[in-house]
Amino acid sequence: MPRQAYVNGRYVPHGSAAVHIEDRGYQFADGVYEVVPVANGTLVDEGWHLDRLERSLNELRIALPMSRSALKLASRELMRRNSLTNGFLYMQVTRGVAPRDHKFPKAAKPALVMTTRQMKPPSGKVLAEGVGVITAPDLRWKRCDIKSVSLLPNILAKQKAVEAGAYEAWQVDSDGRVTEGTSTNAWIVTQEGELVTRDASNSILNGITRLRLLHLLDSEGVSFSERPFTVEEARKAREAFITSSTNFVMPVTRIDGQPVGNGHPGILTTKLREQYEAFVRDLKDSA
Amino acid sequence: MPRQAYVNGRYVPHGSAAVHIEDRGYQFADGVYEVVPVANGTLVDEGWHLDRLERSLNELRIALPMSRSALKLASRELMRRNSLTNGFLYMQVTRGVAPRDHKFPKAAKPALVMTTRQMKPPSGKVLAEGVGVITAPDLRWKRCDIKSVSLLPNILAKQKAVEAGAYEAWQVDSDGRVTEGTSTNAWIVTQEGELVTRDASNSILNGITRLRLLHLLDSEGVSFSERPFTVEEARKAREAFITSSTNFVMPVTRIDGQPVGNGHPGILTTKLREQYEAFVRDLKDSA
Repeated sequence: MPRQAYVNGRYVPHGSAAVHIEDRGYQFADGVYEVVPVANGTLVDEGWHLDRLERSLNELRIALPMSRSALKLASRELMRRNSLTNGFLYMQVTRGVAPRDHKFPKAAKPALVMTTRQMKPPSGKVLAEGVGVITAPDLRWKRCDIKSVSLLPNILAKQKAVEAGAYEAWQVDSDGRVTEGTSTNAWIVTQEGELVTRDASNSILNGITRLRLLHLLDSEGVSFSERPFTVEEARKAREAFITSSTNFVMPVTRIDGQPVGNGHPGILTTKLREQYEAFVRDLKDSA
Repeated sequence: MPRQAYVNGRYVPHGSAAVHIEDRGYQFADGVYEVVPVANGTLVDEGWHLDRLERSLNELRIALPMSRSALKLASRELMRRNSLTNGFLYMQVTRGVAPRDHKFPKAAKPALVMTTRQMKPPSGKVLAEGVGVITAPDLRWKRCDIKSVSLLPNILAKQKAVEAGAYEAWQVDSDGRVTEGTSTNAWIVTQEGELVTRDASNSILNGITRLRLLHLLDSEGVSFSERPFTVEEARKAREAFITSSTNFVMPVTRIDGQPVGNGHPGILTTKLREQYEAFVRDLKDSA
């Protein structure tokens, strides 16, 4: 069976899955999304992803297009049709189709699109080497806590990273402090051994992998600080890593071309990745 | 004939005009647009709009999907099919369709969508009364000079205006200075009689109606200042107005619910509107 997508109540071949040109997602970036990792057929932290989806929608006053239980059924049906066992589920909700006008339309019906993608976990080689990040000015809007599709600044920074031979760009606010990556959260272990990631505010997206890792740290009794850190601190850090739904915990071994610590994935980073992987291995489907 | 839209080389019924769900415009707001006014069958300042379209695309390193002359022909054919005499032409170019990934895709072909809309000029009543604006924090990104479809902050501010019974929201930077409206440029005549609009920088979109009006002012020998002005200055202004492709020159008679000057459209504002209207009346098709 060819790969399918879910578009407003229908399962359609991915290649012909379409939305109207006046869907407000297309003309105004008036929508939000979630990327839920799938491991061994199970949606990882689905409940938290759906909580965040609802929060983003509430902030924009877009209604969830269906009940949470119906959404869970539809996403599982799509996963079944696409034989998805490892990879991710992408969900996008927009305010729907209406004649182009900035203000909220009276009659539009929220639109839901879902896709899946098979994806292997990062190779042992990548994990053994870690990845490089660059730093770049954070050009984004002031409500990065909303997971909107208004991602143009993110893709520009990501492209800059790729062209510099790096994997990710750490965006930096006007005070010289790292906010986050373009699709990942940023973490360091300082020279003093303090594990730091930026506090959740309007300046960053509160990543689900970030949240899960903080939860695991709590239960393991590992101390950490949620606070902004500067580019200077990051460059002098012992260890660095990023977290996201598709990267889990990924060691960062170069910042702006300079090695982090000894240039190899850090001890704590490696331990945290193993803990996160163990958490994922033990998951049961929550539907 | 039912209304048609142009989508990637084809003229299709507007109601069924669609783009793929992985068009980067839909998933990343990775695209730009133009709204060109049409008066008596003529595209107003088409050359400047196309210049700006190319500039926006260059900033994002998206290629113009076809030559400028082909674009002119296609837009005229769409106008002809839709019998468009007064209203506007909407053009949107995105980076095209590619599997979802932040970085620029290697193989995507830029996508072009065009629509038209019949629209009457604002009624004499609206012009005689003027409109109200509110002020609201500018939440947008740092490259507002690019006319991208990343418009979520604009629609949130516009909706706020509508709910406050106003027509537009003047966005205000962190220094308390007005940047621009959500889809218009902002102008005031100060207590001292100085005609002011914010200078073109990364903080505003350099409106074509704004540019045309500056050009007309120059040729009429009317002096003006391009500089930021504060909300405080705006509240004390003698006159205020907005410019845009669909509003031309529209008097602002209330700011945050308080009357501007005597609460009626200003003398200079009215004169400038008449000058702009005269300019539009005298246009000939430039194709």
